[in-house]
Amino acid sequence: MTDPRILTVRPEPDAYAWTFGGAPPVARIAPGTVLDLYTEDCFAGRVRSEKDLVSEVCEFPFLNPQTGPFHIEGAEPGDTVAVHFVSIEPARDWAASTTVPLFGALTSTHTTASLQPPLPERVWIWQLDRARRTALFQAQDSDIEVELPIDPMHGTVGVAPANLEVRSALVPDAHGGNMDTPEMRTGVTCYLGVNVEGALLSLGDGHARQGEGETCGVAVECAMNTVVVVELLKDVATPWPRLESDTHIISTGSARPLEDAFRISQLDLVQWLARDYGFSEPDAYQFATQAVESPLANVCDTNYTCVAKLRKEWLPARETYRGMHARLRETARALRR
Amino acid sequence: MTDPRILTVRPEPDAYAWTFGGAPPVARIAPGTVLDLYTEDCFAGRVRSEKDLVSEVCEFPFLNPQTGPFHIEGAEPGDTVAVHFVSIEPARDWAASTTVPLFGALTSTHTTASLQPPLPERVWIWQLDRARRTALFQAQDSDIEVELPIDPMHGTVGVAPANLEVRSALVPDAHGGNMDTPEMRTGVTCYLGVNVEGALLSLGDGHARQGEGETCGVAVECAMNTVVVVELLKDVATPWPRLESDTHIISTGSARPLEDAFRISQLDLVQWLARDYGFSEPDAYQFATQAVESPLANVCDTNYTCVAKLRKEWLPARETYRGMHARLRETARALRR
Amino acid sequence: MTDPRILTVRPEPDAYAWTFGGAPPVARIAPGTVLDLYTEDCFAGRVRSEKDLVSEVCEFPFLNPQTGPFHIEGAEPGDTVAVHFVSIEPARDWAASTTVPLFGALTSTHTTASLQPPLPERVWIWQLDRARRTALFQAQDSDIEVELPIDPMHGTVGVAPANLEVRSALVPDAHGGNMDTPEMRTGVTCYLGVNVEGALLSLGDGHARQGEGETCGVAVECAMNTVVVVELLKDVATPWPRLESDTHIISTGSARPLEDAFRISQLDLVQWLARDYGFSEPDAYQFATQAVESPLANVCDTNYTCVAKLRKEWLPARETYRGMHARLRETARALRR
Amino acid sequence: MTDPRILTVRPEPDAYAWTFGGAPPVARIAPGTVLDLYTEDCFAGRVRSEKDLVSEVCEFPFLNPQTGPFHIEGAEPGDTVAVHFVSIEPARDWAASTTVPLFGALTSTHTTASLQPPLPERVWIWQLDRARRTALFQAQDSDIEVELPIDPMHGTVGVAPANLEVRSALVPDAHGGNMDTPEMRTGVTCYLGVNVEGALLSLGDGHARQGEGETCGVAVECAMNTVVVVELLKDVATPWPRLESDTHIISTGSARPLEDAFRISQLDLVQWLARDYGFSEPDAYQFATQAVESPLANVCDTNYTCVAKLRKEWLPARETYRGMHARLRETARALRR
Repeated sequence: MTDPRILTVRPEPDAYAWTFGGAPPVARIAPGTVLDLYTEDCFAGRVRSEKDLVSEVCEFPFLNPQTGPFHIEGAEPGDTVAVHFVSIEPARDWAASTTVPLFGALTSTHTTASLQPPLPERVWIWQLDRARRTALFQAQDSDIEVELPIDPMHGTVGVAPANLEVRSALVPDAHGGNMDTPEMRTGVTCYLGVNVEGALLSLGDGHARQGEGETCGVAVECAMNTVVVVELLKDVATPWPRLESDTHIISTGSARPLEDAFRISQLDLVQWLARDYGFSEPDAYQFATQAVESPLANVCDTNYTCVAKLRKEWLPARETYRGMHARLRETARALRR
Repeated sequence: MTDPRILTVRPEPDAYAWTFGGAPPVARIAPGTVLDLYTEDCFAGRVRSEKDLVSEVCEFPFLNPQTGPFHIEGAEPGDTVAVHFVSIEPARDWAASTTVPLFGALTSTHTTASLQPPLPERVWIWQLDRARRTALFQAQDSDIEVELPIDPMHGTVGVAPANLEVRSALVPDAHGGNMDTPEMRTGVTCYLGVNVEGALLSLGDGHARQGEGETCGVAVECAMNTVVVVELLKDVATPWPRLESDTHIISTGSARPLEDAFRISQLDLVQWLARDYGFSEPDAYQFATQAVESPLANVCDTNYTCVAKLRKEWLPARETYRGMHARLRETARALRR
Repeated sequence: MTDPRILTVRPEPDAYAWTFGGAPPVARIAPGTVLDLYTEDCFAGRVRSEKDLVSEVCEFPFLNPQTGPFHIEGAEPGDTVAVHFVSIEPARDWAASTTVPLFGALTSTHTTASLQPPLPERVWIWQLDRARRTALFQAQDSDIEVELPIDPMHGTVGVAPANLEVRSALVPDAHGGNMDTPEMRTGVTCYLGVNVEGALLSLGDGHARQGEGETCGVAVECAMNTVVVVELLKDVATPWPRLESDTHIISTGSARPLEDAFRISQLDLVQWLARDYGFSEPDAYQFATQAVESPLANVCDTNYTCVAKLRKEWLPARETYRGMHARLRETARALRR
Repeated sequence: MTDPRILTVRPEPDAYAWTFGGAPPVARIAPGTVLDLYTEDCFAGRVRSEKDLVSEVCEFPFLNPQTGPFHIEGAEPGDTVAVHFVSIEPARDWAASTTVPLFGALTSTHTTASLQPPLPERVWIWQLDRARRTALFQAQDSDIEVELPIDPMHGTVGVAPANLEVRSALVPDAHGGNMDTPEMRTGVTCYLGVNVEGALLSLGDGHARQGEGETCGVAVECAMNTVVVVELLKDVATPWPRLESDTHIISTGSARPLEDAFRISQLDLVQWLARDYGFSEPDAYQFATQAVESPLANVCDTNYTCVAKLRKEWLPARETYRGMHARLRETARALRR
């Protein structure tokens, strides 16, 4: 293994992207490049205490800053970008979560519109113990304190969308974006279909941890120091973002209503089994029905996101995505040495 | 601990219930009774080979036979029935799964109506190895064979519904019914709110295993020998079915669209935390958002079902449901001795 | 034309039905019978002033009383019952509308669950001028007064459901029930597929008028004096309730999410064109796309209801439902003489 | 009244816009300008016979060409653009409709994903008689022919979206776009909230007629000669597109699921009544519930669109949008002289 090229990017405050598509690339990178990145939290770092209400300190639409985009040399529509997460480490010893007026699953919203007033706005600051890898929940209305394990992840990873569109970094869709799935953690490879020349990859929205569904709309939001390896698979299509870990293959779907996100993710998994693992579609449908894990990702964003996971140990021993995940794991291991 | 009374029920073919509510009780039982039950599979045992297409061998609406209902003495509206699953064991060495015309998540249906013809109808027979606790998937269009672990569960557990209604055993709703969650396994206590005098509990629809979401609409369907202990909690309300395991508290919600099932289950979890664990609602909303697991149950039935799970180790050390689960675990242990 | 038999039914307060299915018939009637009925309002007549809040004066589940059910002699599954509305006249000179906590389209509900408190509860009493055929809206927070034309209709018309079920009178589904469409007015024939022997027809929930979608969940609710003629079409199936007026054929669909109600109603219309008017399905799909009117019925009930209307003048001159509507119009004319 | 300035735009084939936002303006216009426009049909004019299947002759994403955008001088976020339709006239004596694979309400789609194959692809050419103002449906599988009245409209009218986004011309949302409502006809004023400097108005997607809901996804698509007057209302916000005719005020909402589009449109109507007509919100909720008309717009596009209409004769005699509609009607009348 030759030394991969490493590019370090720690953006200035005015150098983040707020959209997928429509932002000029911050760098051109060759496939195989290691990106050593700083990502700001979804509040652009403006929520720092219980007094910093989102509606007062944040400035729409400047939410969910993205580090990037990166132009990947040689990437063209019809190809797939592979992003392997070598490490995702909280950049601070605290993280923030909030309610946001008319946002979240247990409130009416601008689309699930009602005449009811919004829920009260609140901020919770979570103390992180990076050595012990815990996040401390401190209740505001009682003396309850709970230490939860951190499980750092990126809520937002994506490329420029198709159809000439530019989408807010708050949106998840076929180009990836704000999928908010806890599966996007260290050790995972994310496959994204390329829609425009150079792909224009960016990522952000680090979470120290997040429950499945991101019920109130906001996770334990944290700036991150993140290392990824970026690779390119020529002439391999990926219709919706897919993930691969050492143990699972994982399809995603993002849509409304939520059952459509489920349908997309499950159909994608069936078609993945058919394309790469030798199943017919009916057999894949039957097999996935009995074997799939379907933890929710988000039920709060502009599209909702489902994931569909299958254990690799239960699949025929075949190669998917040209064995890319195994190779990237090797690269990651070499980097950590 | 006194010896619990044990009632064995192995229904004659014409003695199943097909609805929740509307069926006369097969027995009156005292709280604390152990039920040693045989449950038939959802096809009423009629699908026994690849040639037994559901549309040919099954007779609507005689699907999803329920063993019961049981009139629980003293149960009144406002109370809660607790059903603890001592054991769920496949009663045969095979199980069946199928496609059903215009049923399932990856097809148009009678409600998600389209002009497309239905998918082809197929039957898969899964061989069960009860000693090794595996189920064998055999592909029909290739030579793929996969052994999956069995994880026996009941798709359907419920009581008579409220509002004077009688619901088909295929329906999940606030009364329980056909929720199709893999969480309904051995070792779990299911709490059901009582709507009518005697509660009228029944159960059925055993699955040797099932993926989350039950994508094609049909799990690995199997007759079961199941032992449950039934208890009664006077003057404790349970608005939607809840489960408790040694490790988790679990809320459910059943509705369409799927986001409403999610909302119900997550709100129920928040309210459970507020009622029994000392959280305010805002604190519970924040805490659950970061800590919840949200695996889908079914996205195919007349209502879709979500579950919301929280690890008990992360909760304040308080008692829920008067410590019923721990006591029932003791009873179960005693029974197994 | 021979004189039709007329049956007058003005139920005692304790003689209403609260469900479709599960209630014993109040009378057996021969096809062709004219029913001269009194129907109580959806509040069972308990909301009579601005002080009568639903949550205080009404007793769940005793809402939406139905007059009936009527056992129609000879009706069997596979047949269709035709109900022609000869007249629907307000029985009082006032009507009531309200908000109901956690019910309606512009509030969270028990299924679209949120942590927000319910909207304030209010009652509006509408004065009816039966001579001038108007209903007077009087604002409560300003001096606005508006006279609207009355357009009396029945929110609820249905038969016993299939699948051994009993459904609350608040539910709309394939058996009819609480569809809440303003199309159910004088001069219309409603076709309902028979699910059980005798059909068990009932109706209620009169509205002096209602907007499309019944936004707040409650129309201008009024007791009614209603005359219908009931007929039977042997061996004609009707999968979802259909209506026929002098000018339109009208399909309905009731489901959640609302797009499924739309799909059902539009597919039913396409299949009606194919069955009775000589269109192929693709041609019917194209033609209906350009010609259909799709006013919403309700977006507040346990299922939402869409209707799909086509002008008869635009259809080939063929007979549908054996010309039943025209004959019933004749009967109605004769009755009014 | 001074003579309005008239700008004629008949774009070259390569001079259409395919997005809202992201396209450079074709002209800067002063408020009050009359635009005399040619708009191409949604197929970019490529479907001209029954043999021209969309999947073969059209090139994604080059669908739904927009004439514009126009930079309106002085328009800033927080203002409202008013677009009055003076005339919409078919530019050809034929129009085209089609099925499109995996698009439309009565088929599975890319989001309501299924394993079923798409419906067969077909094209219907409708002959227009512009003198008699009719469109001729000719069935393909029978000899049915039906003449329907034309009712020309624009499916797509919009401005650049908020949040730095660029949206495909196929998308309806808060910026307008592909709402596909038959209400967008001659004589109507459309109000659009401004999101970016200059507003960047464009329009296209003419339909000779369309049913409510646009069931198969494609109307009677036709190039149009269209005259609009464009005005600017400074410091008047319009959160979702609104329309005003001589007889009605009309709110819109675009979202998925369809009930959310309904909620948005009805809430917008309630808030319109509260802002401009003197109602409190509860009174407006009650009044609109009984008075609203709610014909569906589209149930096929990336968002579904509902409209909520109220008769102006039933409203207090107050001015909305500074009386703009009446003034624009006068301008239109003057233009026709």
